Amino acid sequence: MADSLKTSHIYRVDLGNRSYDIHIEPGCLKGLGPALNQLLGKPARCMIISNVTVAPLYMATVRSSLEQAGWQVSECILADGERYKNLDSFGQIMDALMQARLSRNEPVIALGGGVVGDMTGFAASCYRRGIPFVQVPTTVLAQVDSSVGGKTAINHPHGKNMIGAFYQPKLVWIDPEVLRTLDCREVRAGIAEAIKYGLIRDAAFFTWMQENMQAALALDPAVISTMIHTCCRHKAEVVMGDETEQGARALLNLGHTFGHAIEAMTHYTEYLHGEAVALGTLLAARLSEQAGFAPQGTETAVTDCFRQAGLPLAIPAFDAAMWLDAMGHDKKNIGSRIRYILLHEIGNAFIADDIPADAIEQLIQSYQRPAEPVHT
Amino acid sequence: MADSLKTSHIYRVDLGNRSYDIHIEPGCLKGLGPALNQLLGKPARCMIISNVTVAPLYMATVRSSLEQAGWQVSECILADGERYKNLDSFGQIMDALMQARLSRNEPVIALGGGVVGDMTGFAASCYRRGIPFVQVPTTVLAQVDSSVGGKTAINHPHGKNMIGAFYQPKLVWIDPEVLRTLDCREVRAGIAEAIKYGLIRDAAFFTWMQENMQAALALDPAVISTMIHTCCRHKAEVVMGDETEQGARALLNLGHTFGHAIEAMTHYTEYLHGEAVALGTLLAARLSEQAGFAPQGTETAVTDCFRQAGLPLAIPAFDAAMWLDAMGHDKKNIGSRIRYILLHEIGNAFIADDIPADAIEQLIQSYQRPAEPVHT
Repeated sequence: MADSLKTSHIYRVDLGNRSYDIHIEPGCLKGLGPALNQLLGKPARCMIISNVTVAPLYMATVRSSLEQAGWQVSECILADGERYKNLDSFGQIMDALMQARLSRNEPVIALGGGVVGDMTGFAASCYRRGIPFVQVPTTVLAQVDSSVGGKTAINHPHGKNMIGAFYQPKLVWIDPEVLRTLDCREVRAGIAEAIKYGLIRDAAFFTWMQENMQAALALDPAVISTMIHTCCRHKAEVVMGDETEQGARALLNLGHTFGHAIEAMTHYTEYLHGEAVALGTLLAARLSEQAGFAPQGTETAVTDCFRQAGLPLAIPAFDAAMWLDAMGHDKKNIGSRIRYILLHEIGNAFIADDIPADAIEQLIQSYQRPAEPVHT
Repeated sequence: MADSLKTSHIYRVDLGNRSYDIHIEPGCLKGLGPALNQLLGKPARCMIISNVTVAPLYMATVRSSLEQAGWQVSECILADGERYKNLDSFGQIMDALMQARLSRNEPVIALGGGVVGDMTGFAASCYRRGIPFVQVPTTVLAQVDSSVGGKTAINHPHGKNMIGAFYQPKLVWIDPEVLRTLDCREVRAGIAEAIKYGLIRDAAFFTWMQENMQAALALDPAVISTMIHTCCRHKAEVVMGDETEQGARALLNLGHTFGHAIEAMTHYTEYLHGEAVALGTLLAARLSEQAGFAPQGTETAVTDCFRQAGLPLAIPAFDAAMWLDAMGHDKKNIGSRIRYILLHEIGNAFIADDIPADAIEQLIQSYQRPAEPVHT
């Protein structure tokens, strides 16, 4: 079994001249140098962008692999956390790229989680109007979701991922072994995004996640490997069908409309992205039931799964008006409609463009009612 | 004659699903509203981005045209000048877009010169990962060159246009009548970019520009109209052949490698972009002659034309080392080569990737030698 885990899995994201491979292999971190040579030809300069948490753990391995393959490596080390995914950090990356004088054909490598990957990708899309970039995701969340698909962005104080680009990496290089150093809370947050794939398009995978939750949380190699493969396969399929989110790709945003609002309302400091998405998914599940789209019990099933994963389950208490504002409802614009992803059932999500603000207000209020008094 | 000038000219920039029209028509500014309806369907919200110089002159006309066509208009007014084409102004546009809550299908309109157009285009490419934008250029430079082709960017303190995107507008809406309020120096700077098209691919147009220079400087409607058409036709042809500058589009950068260095060395405060390009073109012409690519007399012909246009002719005095540094020559990287656009003759430019730094040093020094003593 251990040997079979060493087998690499490769998925091709087929997008014409923007196609690339997702390479998943335990221990592959130290093989990035040769892979980059194969991908880009003659080695030249490159820059690894990481953060203060990940760099001490994995920079040396990646750097040495690249240098041995002939690359001249610069580094840019950012602060760690969603709150730093902003225009200031973006400026910092640009300063580093200018100082390193990277030319138009020289790549940047994102070594880190979703924040590092999103910012690096956006910076790569802008620097000299676009240079190659490679995703080396080091969190569960980035390995199962955010490193694939080319959605890059930074946050605006008033909205998550509001400044960004669709810009595909040239390679996604996933080493599940790096997850071993991951904080337990980060693992749980990443698993929330994995569960998402079950909820939107694969009921069997949802069941499998429930059955294998403890092994996943313990980072059992076989279970983690299967989880990553399955999610990457789903992500690749969705992205190939709708690269720039004109339609079905929006289903991947299950839990995100509410989740992004939670992140913005708490100034990106209280919840990890995956935690906020889990909370948002609970809201979406309840709304799906309340509006009669999903059968009774759907919310409970989702809640139970997130509880198994050790994710937060308490919806933060903000006024409905704050929620609506954070989600972009615009009172001045009567026609304003927010897009929600809702469930018909586990494994079957859909886009709902016609949910009135009233229904959202009721939904929020349903969490704020005091518990029914218990007769004693 | 006056009537025939009212005829609109439309060039189609054919780039698949990124195709758009360049509409050139005297007085068309007040017709933008209906045009936007035709282009985007049902009016909704839009934002006009302009600067403190242009807005007092033309905002009311454009705004009223849009409002009469049913649009709900916001404004974002920036400081005027190349020195403000930076990350701060970009952040200011993002704040305004967030405040106006523009959605993914609602357009921004760039009302101004090259700086406004470049920044607005870049902001449009990033906000929510891309919203539609329309160019309404109000300077000669923007009407003959920068508003067409989708090169958008802001400057980095260490390099011009280093942060940007290839992002095509949905429409370029050119009203030559707005040039009447333009500062004379701005007219001359724009004419430098017009002359560029003659130098790189149309010797007859170069001659025509020389013959009609005084009329062009006086903004004679017929001459200005022909100049704009001709340049837009050239620009459209080049962009259709090479949208993202993999090859021949680079020819449009004649004078720009040196010109951008001049702008950066003088902190974007001393020269208008077109003036810096004119100086850069003089350097390119002399280099072309010195290296034996172009016949003797080429530099003189270019100089004479720029003199007619009233453009600055004195190459600013900086050390050769500063020039090389500003142009991105990297001493740590032995293989570093800068791309220059040089001339075989008037009307025939080519890309030179193999100019050694020595030749550039000699070129720069050739301007710094004291004049030969005159025997008295």
